[in-house]
Amino acid sequence: MRRKKQPALHWLDAAAGNGLLDRRIFLTGGAVAAASVALPDKTLGAEALAVEPWMKTPGSPFVAYGQPSRYANKVARIFASAPGTTGTGTSRTPHHLLDGMITPNGLHFERHHSGIPEIDPQAHRLLIHGLVKRPLVFTLDALNRYPMESRIAFVECAGNSALLYQKEPAQLGVQPIHGLLSCAEWTGIRLATLLEEAGVDPKAQWLLAEGADAAGMSRSVPLSKAMDDALIALYQNGEPVRPSNGYPMRLLLPGYEGNMQVKWLRRIKLTEGPTMTKDETSKYTILRDDGKALQFYFPQEAKSIITRPSPGMTLNAAGLYEISGLAWSGNGKISKVDVSADGGSSWATAALQEPVLPKAVTRFRMPWRWSGGPATLQSRASDESGYVQPTRARLIADRGARTIYHFNGIASWGVSQGGEVKHVYA
Amino acid sequence: MRRKKQPALHWLDAAAGNGLLDRRIFLTGGAVAAASVALPDKTLGAEALAVEPWMKTPGSPFVAYGQPSRYANKVARIFASAPGTTGTGTSRTPHHLLDGMITPNGLHFERHHSGIPEIDPQAHRLLIHGLVKRPLVFTLDALNRYPMESRIAFVECAGNSALLYQKEPAQLGVQPIHGLLSCAEWTGIRLATLLEEAGVDPKAQWLLAEGADAAGMSRSVPLSKAMDDALIALYQNGEPVRPSNGYPMRLLLPGYEGNMQVKWLRRIKLTEGPTMTKDETSKYTILRDDGKALQFYFPQEAKSIITRPSPGMTLNAAGLYEISGLAWSGNGKISKVDVSADGGSSWATAALQEPVLPKAVTRFRMPWRWSGGPATLQSRASDESGYVQPTRARLIADRGARTIYHFNGIASWGVSQGGEVKHVYA
Repeated sequence: MRRKKQPALHWLDAAAGNGLLDRRIFLTGGAVAAASVALPDKTLGAEALAVEPWMKTPGSPFVAYGQPSRYANKVARIFASAPGTTGTGTSRTPHHLLDGMITPNGLHFERHHSGIPEIDPQAHRLLIHGLVKRPLVFTLDALNRYPMESRIAFVECAGNSALLYQKEPAQLGVQPIHGLLSCAEWTGIRLATLLEEAGVDPKAQWLLAEGADAAGMSRSVPLSKAMDDALIALYQNGEPVRPSNGYPMRLLLPGYEGNMQVKWLRRIKLTEGPTMTKDETSKYTILRDDGKALQFYFPQEAKSIITRPSPGMTLNAAGLYEISGLAWSGNGKISKVDVSADGGSSWATAALQEPVLPKAVTRFRMPWRWSGGPATLQSRASDESGYVQPTRARLIADRGARTIYHFNGIASWGVSQGGEVKHVYA
Repeated sequence: MRRKKQPALHWLDAAAGNGLLDRRIFLTGGAVAAASVALPDKTLGAEALAVEPWMKTPGSPFVAYGQPSRYANKVARIFASAPGTTGTGTSRTPHHLLDGMITPNGLHFERHHSGIPEIDPQAHRLLIHGLVKRPLVFTLDALNRYPMESRIAFVECAGNSALLYQKEPAQLGVQPIHGLLSCAEWTGIRLATLLEEAGVDPKAQWLLAEGADAAGMSRSVPLSKAMDDALIALYQNGEPVRPSNGYPMRLLLPGYEGNMQVKWLRRIKLTEGPTMTKDETSKYTILRDDGKALQFYFPQEAKSIITRPSPGMTLNAAGLYEISGLAWSGNGKISKVDVSADGGSSWATAALQEPVLPKAVTRFRMPWRWSGGPATLQSRASDESGYVQPTRARLIADRGARTIYHFNGIASWGVSQGGEVKHVYA
């Protein structure tokens, strides 16, 4: 392997223990021989490449709506439903096979409570009523005339990463453990615009948002959030919102737990207090060890995951790798991500991919020269509010482990002597 | 219609002639009654909404890779092939039905010269050779170990909008006229990183990039561009690059004409001068009226299009609309977009959707109160270099109309008394 003869890495300063390197290599584009295979003869030309069958015959024709390569068929969601149902459950984004900040629409995670309704957009209506001066009903065509706004925002299920509340580390990878998180560009009308048109009664402090699915998913939302940055989203990564994400429209509450961002939105009712729906009393509350429950715990706090390397991948040779991952906060922009290769003994600051946007995922990257020996990889996100992602032990000490919601502690991947990557607690 | 009784618009100052309004409504979220239908009884509740059939039965189950709603089947590409071929031609993005800055992967435009090859990623190789110290061959697995970079970038075919060189305005809409433009988040390895590893011979000033399709698409690229911001892109909007966009890898040259950003990239050969391939001599040069040709005219200069309203849409009532469109420049960030509703007699500055990124599309928005009478809608983009999108007449006066490439003049949509939108020259 050529990289062993190559001096290209000597200038890369160590940034922390066990092989973490200075992130400036991302800024300079400097020589970072990783895994190429040098050819022995420098005059060698195009004949070194096989002329593959796909170069000998015309390729496939055009289609109206494109699909991935059949060779990429592992880049897919995994899903599971409750017994006796086909649509009550979750599907999860394969972050170990993705890079960048956008989740393509076909791979956005889902959490449905009674499957995906197939809504005729011409028949669908949005009603705004309750404590308003003028109840209003909107068709999709009407909404399409209003001023729009776009923002790139993550959506994360409150139950994402719940397996880390368990006593032993689940022997699973990024997708089953952390796959209830996605990020897309959403475009729609500010809910504030529609509420001001309806005329908000001063007594209103909350609203009820109700979906048009068979579960009648309903959640209470503080009016202050609705007036701040809530959107009635009509577009997802440019195209109409997908059925699994609320077609023809969903509520987007940037940074809040996914369940509140009601899909297939049909009704907003302004109220004095929370409605105490089935979906926010029996579920989506955090029961602590002292028997008290944290209810209406809305923002998803700062968190990060390493997506590559991650379980299921085996490092097959010592040398340079990129540690790549995602960080996000429901309370604003990510300000810093630190990475450790020695289980938290030493940390180095990762490069953050621009643009760093509030309440969107931020891709972080860290060069790592794997020695071939054991390593424990961790990432730790901080956000602009000053909040720092806690260790798993700290989070559980504060909150107990009787809940399945809002786990945002530091996760750990162990790398063995042989290069195998496994989920560990460290 | 309620909006006629409503005083909500009186505070919206005119910004230019024929109904253009102050863009600050996008910042305040102020009351902008457009097209809602008020309910007569303020106590009216949820019973005002029909309980549609999709609320009465569980919805569809999960799938591994999601698809759009069948009701959104018009949100699709149109395409055409050369006689006797199925894959030599173009497919076009339906911008009139999209919003935001991201083009979803299934709707990215395509220009193929011999169809879409179905490449086995395990067999595919990338060779870097020619004027280098060490020829290198890379597998996809090897490339996945290198430091990556993500950027949101537009790709535009040099032949986009060519119909505007014609003497009479083609009676077509945004998609057939301007649909050879798309924008995605691309992730890959900086080409500079790989070239530095190979060791660039000081004599090298250009490179040849060759694709693995049956057309052997080949273009010459200045080495300076390769070292500046070129990427070997492996991911498109998060997932592996689509077959129609070069799976398993393509060259990304942000801001340059699409044809140079070679898909299915298999070979990069460093050379002293341009190779003068078939694809850059007989095609992709601009023949002027004086018989001289502009060759190697690479960046796509600043341009904008109004996507909504646009031909095919009929405005069915006077009142408030959003004028929405896209602006982009191959030379950097968009600095300003002006909009006119009176064929260029007066202009108002549009709101630009953040983030405004270099060599990416920028969504612009302008509120417009349509009087119900005739209007001519135009947009004019400026970029950070100081360049201003020219009128169609100015562009043709400078360049002639014998070419089909690099049309970036101002386009015009005429709105008739009855609300019909048509392509016009103005």
